[in-house]
Amino acid sequence: MAVLLWERALEPAIGTWSLPGGRLRDDEDLDTSAARQLAEKVDVRELTHLEQLSVFSDPHRLPDPPRRIASAYLGLVPLTAEPELPPDTRWHPVSALPHMSFDHGGIVEHARTRLAAKLSYTNIAFALAPDRFTMSTLREIYCAALGYDVDTTNLQRVLSRRKVITPTGATASPGRAGGRPAAVYRFTDSEIRVTDEFAALRPPT
Amino acid sequence: MAVLLWERALEPAIGTWSLPGGRLRDDEDLDTSAARQLAEKVDVRELTHLEQLSVFSDPHRLPDPPRRIASAYLGLVPLTAEPELPPDTRWHPVSALPHMSFDHGGIVEHARTRLAAKLSYTNIAFALAPDRFTMSTLREIYCAALGYDVDTTNLQRVLSRRKVITPTGATASPGRAGGRPAAVYRFTDSEIRVTDEFAALRPPT
Repeated sequence: MAVLLWERALEPAIGTWSLPGGRLRDDEDLDTSAARQLAEKVDVRELTHLEQLSVFSDPHRLPDPPRRIASAYLGLVPLTAEPELPPDTRWHPVSALPHMSFDHGGIVEHARTRLAAKLSYTNIAFALAPDRFTMSTLREIYCAALGYDVDTTNLQRVLSRRKVITPTGATASPGRAGGRPAAVYRFTDSEIRVTDEFAALRPPT
Repeated sequence: MAVLLWERALEPAIGTWSLPGGRLRDDEDLDTSAARQLAEKVDVRELTHLEQLSVFSDPHRLPDPPRRIASAYLGLVPLTAEPELPPDTRWHPVSALPHMSFDHGGIVEHARTRLAAKLSYTNIAFALAPDRFTMSTLREIYCAALGYDVDTTNLQRVLSRRKVITPTGATASPGRAGGRPAAVYRFTDSEIRVTDEFAALRPPT
């Protein structure tokens, strides 16, 4: 699980690492602004998921006036995405963040918590996985995002029962470790949805 | 399911109904501001739940400049709460809103959708229910908030299995309709939590 950060070359907080972002333009809303800044500043053009995370509004979150209020977004790209990064920008493991600017460390932590929660009741992993994948790859994604170990068989069973993933019928040839070919899956949907909608209470369809 | 609104006595949008709110002060963050404005303006002092809902930032959401960005909150009080309302303020059924100011109708709709979703994967109904309640009362709360009919027996079964509610041991005497005394329940927790944490994937405790 990695987050894209850029290193500040000027004061304030020179040398610390920041989340990509910038000022809201007069003629755009926040969603448009978040997508624009990711594309313009760090070449992230194909987000599989983008949602408002939270607004960070502590009056003293920046060392000097003017006060700035940060509307933070959670934007996801698949493991296989390879944006062309500017020289000051790099992926960092969420579990080993560098010295972060201002309150950006707390924002990343908030995003990590939100993502782990959503993995438990939605199909949001579609936004992190490649189009086609084996359970072994998907397990790695869940382990990385949840921060603890997950059993491949359990994962396959739960996600299949909830119709979150669908077998494609194809198999992947075994890796160098040998073994049997592995079944290839895809996510059933490519938009976020709650996967366990309190099934017993759902309205009749 | 009702929402607290006040009627605008002055332009812009005179005579339309608005969500309680106001300007963020220089020395407060958004959470503090939301709680303060509910207490000062509509006497809502004991929220059982308050969360950031979404930021509404369409550059043209208000008819005239200056541009204003609205950070909307979902604040809940129990059915039994009785704030002392100012004369211009009234509870309105979410299913029959009056003529709403600006984009406030869309904000209420967003809140309704969020609340219905959270009812399906969290214990958030604790914030709407009285301290002690019968399943019949709880069913009414779920029906109102979900917007469709829910079976009392199913509701009791699902919420008990997930340890969301706990029997108190007490019973309520039957109402005028007669029948047997009803078991009285309480919510197990009074903070929001995800009630079905993808059980099979949880870390060992």
